[in-house]
Amino acid sequence: MAKSTLKIVRTVADLRAQVGAWKAAGERVALIPTMGALHEGHLSLIQLGQVQARRTVASVFVNPKQFAPHEDFDSYPRGEARDAELLAEVGCDLMFAPDVSEMYAPGFSTTVNLTGVSEPLEGAARPQFFGGVATVVTKLLLQSQADVAIFGEKDYQQLQVIKRVVKDLDIPVEIVGAPTARATDGLALSSRNAYLSAEERAAAVALPNAIKAAAKAVAAGGRIDEAEETAKTAILAAGFRQVDYVDIREASDLSRLGPGPIGQADGRILVAAWLGRTRLIDNMAV
Amino acid sequence: MAKSTLKIVRTVADLRAQVGAWKAAGERVALIPTMGALHEGHLSLIQLGQVQARRTVASVFVNPKQFAPHEDFDSYPRGEARDAELLAEVGCDLMFAPDVSEMYAPGFSTTVNLTGVSEPLEGAARPQFFGGVATVVTKLLLQSQADVAIFGEKDYQQLQVIKRVVKDLDIPVEIVGAPTARATDGLALSSRNAYLSAEERAAAVALPNAIKAAAKAVAAGGRIDEAEETAKTAILAAGFRQVDYVDIREASDLSRLGPGPIGQADGRILVAAWLGRTRLIDNMAV
Repeated sequence: MAKSTLKIVRTVADLRAQVGAWKAAGERVALIPTMGALHEGHLSLIQLGQVQARRTVASVFVNPKQFAPHEDFDSYPRGEARDAELLAEVGCDLMFAPDVSEMYAPGFSTTVNLTGVSEPLEGAARPQFFGGVATVVTKLLLQSQADVAIFGEKDYQQLQVIKRVVKDLDIPVEIVGAPTARATDGLALSSRNAYLSAEERAAAVALPNAIKAAAKAVAAGGRIDEAEETAKTAILAAGFRQVDYVDIREASDLSRLGPGPIGQADGRILVAAWLGRTRLIDNMAV
Repeated sequence: MAKSTLKIVRTVADLRAQVGAWKAAGERVALIPTMGALHEGHLSLIQLGQVQARRTVASVFVNPKQFAPHEDFDSYPRGEARDAELLAEVGCDLMFAPDVSEMYAPGFSTTVNLTGVSEPLEGAARPQFFGGVATVVTKLLLQSQADVAIFGEKDYQQLQVIKRVVKDLDIPVEIVGAPTARATDGLALSSRNAYLSAEERAAAVALPNAIKAAAKAVAAGGRIDEAEETAKTAILAAGFRQVDYVDIREASDLSRLGPGPIGQADGRILVAAWLGRTRLIDNMAV
């Protein structure tokens, strides 16, 4: 049974009217940006939003600007009715589901770009990705004027990019990262897991297992280069066809660590690898 | 005699505390971004701000990111005490004068870029300019959270760039353009006029005179290409050493008009030219 009546708005004007009314009443508002195809991972972000604020707004928008032409924008899973049902069940107050023309009107010509934390890893593999993410997240934050916004650590580099943009542009919002939600076998929940065959789904658990083992080896004083290499070998042995990266990096600016022991640094291991036609990512603290 | 006590703040935290207090009291706030070296032109922007809002905030910041290495960042005129005096005289409520490290902390790595309206004219002559302008203006708008911001039509392309960025990123502020303030002979007021020798200052009036005549000729049905050429010839004949451009363009997106008569289009003539070592710009409605 739904815990609340979920309101759905599709325009920035309607979004601002509702959020403005809540803020005028002294209620703190949390934004949870999503691309829909919601799963338990997203719902855990809504629940964290409910701890952080009186009102929660989930945006559902598959952002064309963060997909390259050869990527899966057209096939990315969509299902608004199911998304709305799940949001209502978890007690979310508002769903903001704009269409592409509401977000990018004719003549749109601005991009938020950054260097540094956006460049390695996902930025190297997907050159258009973080410019698209930074632009749409800046828009969503300014459209909603939320007090706090929640992002999953599942997309760890994205979380660091957003923290950097918010700080650099002085966007008046607090950014909160939420722990990755995982299936019982340890695989990080992801909308793209829907692409996996039963056989691939069984093999996928090698990804979290390999980086967990690497993080443990490095925490015990092992060399970073050796831990990365061992993880890569394990992932390929499990049936992944390509590893884009498996890197242990500094946790906030994502600069390179190693090749030797980690010492006192605050590290993060991040991985991206292909299982058949599906690209999976994951990361853990080191 | 000063009409008010001008308060001066140097940090974003202090700026937000003061503006937040005004807004909490229901007072509308106008921001007037400047690079200091204030003259009557800037003061007319403050006065327009006072018509638009109960409180006016002038920012004074010479933004290094909008100067190329060979440009006049180091020699750009600065005089904070005199600026503060002028702002107090005109009744401005607050001066925000951050230093460079307050605006660009270590690790700063975000840029607001745009295509289209930023590309011709000043964008072609000064490739780094509008990225620097768009970034610092986005920051100032989000730092101050002003209700309205005032920009002079003197920097006409900059005004169109800022309108585009504010619309594209959904920055919650109203942008108002203010007519160019001119000396009695018609020269647009500019901080860079301080660079001119007495002889150059006398010759400079050829700039507004030439574009005024061109605008009149086109309004009377004349060809755009001929009016532009006549204006260029007149400017060079008056002693300017180079004309970067003298273009009649569509008034809001700055796309090319002509070469024939203007017809029903809403036009703007824009000019940039060098008088000795000083680069002057001007523009007028057509």
